[in-house]
Amino acid sequence: MLNPNRFFDPEPGVRQIAAELYAAVKGLPLISPHGHVDPRILAENTPFPDPVEMFIIPDHYIFRMLFSQGISLNALGISHRDGVVYETDYRKIWRLFAENFWLFAGTPSGIWLEYEFSELFGIDQKLNSNTADKIYDQIREKLTSPDYLPRSLFERFNLEMLTTTDVPWDNLKYHRQLRESGWKGNVNPCLRPDGVTNLYAADWKKNIDSLAEITGIWINNYSQFIRALEKQREFFKSMGAISTDHAAEEAYTSRLSEQEADRLFQQALQGKVTPDDARQFTGQMLMEMARMSCEDGLIMHLHVGALRNHDPKLFTVYGPDKGADIPIASEFTRNLKPLLNAYGSHPNFKLVVFTLDESTYSRELAPLAGYYPALRLGPAWWFHDSIQGMIRFRERVLETAGVVNLVGFIDDTRAFPSIPARHDLARRIDSNYLAGLVARHIITLEEARSMNYALAYGLSKKFYQLKV
Amino acid sequence: MLNPNRFFDPEPGVRQIAAELYAAVKGLPLISPHGHVDPRILAENTPFPDPVEMFIIPDHYIFRMLFSQGISLNALGISHRDGVVYETDYRKIWRLFAENFWLFAGTPSGIWLEYEFSELFGIDQKLNSNTADKIYDQIREKLTSPDYLPRSLFERFNLEMLTTTDVPWDNLKYHRQLRESGWKGNVNPCLRPDGVTNLYAADWKKNIDSLAEITGIWINNYSQFIRALEKQREFFKSMGAISTDHAAEEAYTSRLSEQEADRLFQQALQGKVTPDDARQFTGQMLMEMARMSCEDGLIMHLHVGALRNHDPKLFTVYGPDKGADIPIASEFTRNLKPLLNAYGSHPNFKLVVFTLDESTYSRELAPLAGYYPALRLGPAWWFHDSIQGMIRFRERVLETAGVVNLVGFIDDTRAFPSIPARHDLARRIDSNYLAGLVARHIITLEEARSMNYALAYGLSKKFYQLKV
Amino acid sequence: MLNPNRFFDPEPGVRQIAAELYAAVKGLPLISPHGHVDPRILAENTPFPDPVEMFIIPDHYIFRMLFSQGISLNALGISHRDGVVYETDYRKIWRLFAENFWLFAGTPSGIWLEYEFSELFGIDQKLNSNTADKIYDQIREKLTSPDYLPRSLFERFNLEMLTTTDVPWDNLKYHRQLRESGWKGNVNPCLRPDGVTNLYAADWKKNIDSLAEITGIWINNYSQFIRALEKQREFFKSMGAISTDHAAEEAYTSRLSEQEADRLFQQALQGKVTPDDARQFTGQMLMEMARMSCEDGLIMHLHVGALRNHDPKLFTVYGPDKGADIPIASEFTRNLKPLLNAYGSHPNFKLVVFTLDESTYSRELAPLAGYYPALRLGPAWWFHDSIQGMIRFRERVLETAGVVNLVGFIDDTRAFPSIPARHDLARRIDSNYLAGLVARHIITLEEARSMNYALAYGLSKKFYQLKV
Repeated sequence: MLNPNRFFDPEPGVRQIAAELYAAVKGLPLISPHGHVDPRILAENTPFPDPVEMFIIPDHYIFRMLFSQGISLNALGISHRDGVVYETDYRKIWRLFAENFWLFAGTPSGIWLEYEFSELFGIDQKLNSNTADKIYDQIREKLTSPDYLPRSLFERFNLEMLTTTDVPWDNLKYHRQLRESGWKGNVNPCLRPDGVTNLYAADWKKNIDSLAEITGIWINNYSQFIRALEKQREFFKSMGAISTDHAAEEAYTSRLSEQEADRLFQQALQGKVTPDDARQFTGQMLMEMARMSCEDGLIMHLHVGALRNHDPKLFTVYGPDKGADIPIASEFTRNLKPLLNAYGSHPNFKLVVFTLDESTYSRELAPLAGYYPALRLGPAWWFHDSIQGMIRFRERVLETAGVVNLVGFIDDTRAFPSIPARHDLARRIDSNYLAGLVARHIITLEEARSMNYALAYGLSKKFYQLKV
Repeated sequence: MLNPNRFFDPEPGVRQIAAELYAAVKGLPLISPHGHVDPRILAENTPFPDPVEMFIIPDHYIFRMLFSQGISLNALGISHRDGVVYETDYRKIWRLFAENFWLFAGTPSGIWLEYEFSELFGIDQKLNSNTADKIYDQIREKLTSPDYLPRSLFERFNLEMLTTTDVPWDNLKYHRQLRESGWKGNVNPCLRPDGVTNLYAADWKKNIDSLAEITGIWINNYSQFIRALEKQREFFKSMGAISTDHAAEEAYTSRLSEQEADRLFQQALQGKVTPDDARQFTGQMLMEMARMSCEDGLIMHLHVGALRNHDPKLFTVYGPDKGADIPIASEFTRNLKPLLNAYGSHPNFKLVVFTLDESTYSRELAPLAGYYPALRLGPAWWFHDSIQGMIRFRERVLETAGVVNLVGFIDDTRAFPSIPARHDLARRIDSNYLAGLVARHIITLEEARSMNYALAYGLSKKFYQLKV
Repeated sequence: MLNPNRFFDPEPGVRQIAAELYAAVKGLPLISPHGHVDPRILAENTPFPDPVEMFIIPDHYIFRMLFSQGISLNALGISHRDGVVYETDYRKIWRLFAENFWLFAGTPSGIWLEYEFSELFGIDQKLNSNTADKIYDQIREKLTSPDYLPRSLFERFNLEMLTTTDVPWDNLKYHRQLRESGWKGNVNPCLRPDGVTNLYAADWKKNIDSLAEITGIWINNYSQFIRALEKQREFFKSMGAISTDHAAEEAYTSRLSEQEADRLFQQALQGKVTPDDARQFTGQMLMEMARMSCEDGLIMHLHVGALRNHDPKLFTVYGPDKGADIPIASEFTRNLKPLLNAYGSHPNFKLVVFTLDESTYSRELAPLAGYYPALRLGPAWWFHDSIQGMIRFRERVLETAGVVNLVGFIDDTRAFPSIPARHDLARRIDSNYLAGLVARHIITLEEARSMNYALAYGLSKKFYQLKV
């Protein structure tokens, strides 16, 4: 059902070059060093129980669109915070989804899902009311086969590595289980400390206690807190981690004095934090984490610009990460200045930045990445990881930053089966973008080949220092 | 003179699909639920007196461009606030316009005018110094024919409905006259309360008095003011209104206490208003109007982002709406949060948002509309209702919001004869945009057909609940 | 080596029109009224000593990219502020550059350099490690020939005029030398007063003293300062100047009282300036310079939006203009209001604005230029003077401002040999952009021809009032 020339320019000359470029990168392994797949899936390696649990329930892209059309999350089987689930009839949920699948025409979700249906499950019909049951049954049946176990899929996906996202008070038991299982798949933890570095994080105090417990460090002041984080970074590294991951509303960085940092930390321990305190503390912690990266070599990922939980009603009932995080305008030139001035030329530091504000691509991020040795740009992110979004990213950053100041395509997903779909789309967009440059004689075919390899695989392979 | 394939991609494959898609929507009725045509034109149905009064004097797009090239508004017959008009020789004005018509090559105004000249008046030559007199005579002559009376044009335009813009203290006498005339044309009023909800509006106190007079409600405090507005909404609804229209410099919304709202209202009655007072009051009134919409079902239009009357010299001499309103950066994610949190999931609420800041398309508006059930995006607006502007809009919102979270193309014009030109351009741009997706195998031809119908007609038909 | 159809659309119909349009403007003279070439080069007319001194050392586009990849500026022969140079072996530097030349594939620098190598030096091979020595020798040898003397190149470039950038305390001795030499080349000074109008400029006090010395005006208060500037404008004008040039972090303009302006000036003389003082003073000085332009007719250039010297380590060791100036978000609608309200309709005033924030193109700049007679838009600037950057500029401004509110392509470079490469690229982009409009029947071929001539030459010829 999928056209082999999909996403390529209709002009025959460009299309032919695109197809040629794509053919050379199509089969390269996938590198996924910035994902959110639950390691338990691979550790336990039990079958995915149902198409609904595979495609709908974990994917806020899907249910936010349905919600926008007046379909309640209850009807889609999304569980409440307290565990209540209103609709448990998966076939009924699937039919509701199928009936509305046309809403996703031309959206990234639609494109990824059609890839998954076709390439992963051999479905050759459009999903709609008429085909709902048949496709549901087809997928359900396949999910029972050993070929569709998580580790089989991992291998079939040709995943060279996959990174998860883990809180700093995690004991990484699933990662341990994976390592001890003897399975060859390369799955690494990644330390994401937002729950303790953001003084406004839900359950901050509880998280600090958990961090204290796991490290055995009594965390009563700022320097103990820092020590505990350093210890956990070491532990994560010993478990294969190569990176940390940081989300913040803004990219604000600022160096506080040790006393000032401790004062804010003490305030937080007493539950007396102002929004500006939290902002200053996050700014300070980004500096600290960068400093630690210079020391231990963990690659720092920073993604900013989402106002989380825009709809308090949704948050109260269903919790976070349910599709109501909305982007805001972002600023990098001034906000990252303290951090880049301190560490941006440090030979051991590597920072990858992601934005939800496309106006910063050409104005701030490409010029910054085109100067500071430590800074690389992550790919078009989240809402912008779409065909037009990816094209805008390439058009706005490649001329100023050059290919070499990017990390290439690394997906960012909690939807495990969508990983190959996302890489395939990105590789097609890159192949086509570069084909356009070749056809307009901006670069040679040989240059395009090498840039395409870099974007698909080479850049991240080298940047994340993966062994061959 | 107009090429049948105009505005379509030159690549033959895309062009053919575009032409095919366009052919299917070309003849659909026009829905214009957000316009500014004076209802008097249709109520009185007298001939347009002159090409200059039809095309130049009411169109700030035209005279702002001529002004930018050093041509005075006096020479174009634009009347001063005090009624003085310097140039009254229409033929002379037309010649000046014709001589400079080349300035509009490639601009929306040029494209709309060429459509009007060709399709409406059968002109088959470019307007310039040589053809000025001949074209002037041709148009003038046609304007005397019954076929060019406003109602005849309305029917010829295939206008399924037209909404005007009316102040809340309007007695809607022209709308009454229209209803009583027995003419079948569907023309509806729309309540635009900025003159009383913006405490800084020129003549605010006078407007409040007029509102008091027409409603018979003595407006001495905030709750009386609200009651008067509610009463007028009821009256407008009884006269066929389906919507309200709101302009604001920013999208700021905020719920005040009843006492605080009344305090600001009292300040305003005493002529003591600060800019922040006005901002808070506008934010509160947007909340109130949304609340009323939930109750009475009037659809709320909100367009923000113009700094009105940028040039005080122009404003003093010629008044408002003369081409010197200039866009500013806008913010929606935080500003609309109170309103969307309160009403964004209300089953009876419908909100259409327009922006002049294109950086908000993909960053804020598409993500918001892709989540909140009540929110729809208005089309590319004002300066952005141009070929490239419309393409940018489609590229930036369709992937994230999907087609279904738009209201389709609804023009926004005070220039009555330009309505079909604007819809035709939008339909061509949509057809071509979707053709590009088909040619790149992103959507199927069948999906494109249905999306094209939706954008041209179906979405607004359904959203504005027009009876067939 | 350069394809004659480079940068044109691959669609054969568009390409053919583009080629035809380009052929008509390709040979037009170059107008460069906003450059930063050192007048000494042309005054002394001595050979360029070496390819490294011609292409690498003066070009921060080149070394910032190499720096971003971990190559030290020392290794590239960039001299420290104190005059120390670490690497003086030019052949070694050239080899390092050649080895990394692939980094520039698809970047503006790569495109300009390939043009220069090919068109200026007849090189027919890609620069890389293998060809480094051969190409180095070829260029070095040519540089010794009289055909490659600066004045010969100026003539060969078909430069109709070139403007330099000069501090207001400059005695313009190289310009005098040029005029007295009898050489026909049209080289004009341009007064750039930032060093005295920005109270935070490095060496501000010293600059004031220099201004006092050269004018013979004792500068002890604001009005003396203004008088000194007026005197130097007169002097520059007598030496052929037609313009002034202003850089500021933001476009803020504001009229201060004479007393307030003097108070700030006195503070500065005493070394007590706050950031807000400097901001207010810059805003006031832009007003003053606009006022003077109305009086003496010098065209005012304003470019805003760069946060200079983002990396203090670089600044301390190597000084300014070394590739670490980074754009920030800009605002024009409110910031330019005081200036445009006062002078924007003055018949003798001409203002050209440049931005580094592309989100302002369609939101603010095109609407402003489409109204105020005095305002014209400069071309896509600096990081945006690239293929995609130029396309974005055209797409975002032409529909609203029209071609006539632009100044056409005027380069902005300190790299003398790159001038023809930059104009050629812009002419190709314009030809191709207009060809796309013709192929889509948005404009006629005749209109495209005239717009293309305007953008390539006609607009700047007329705007800068160059005699034929």
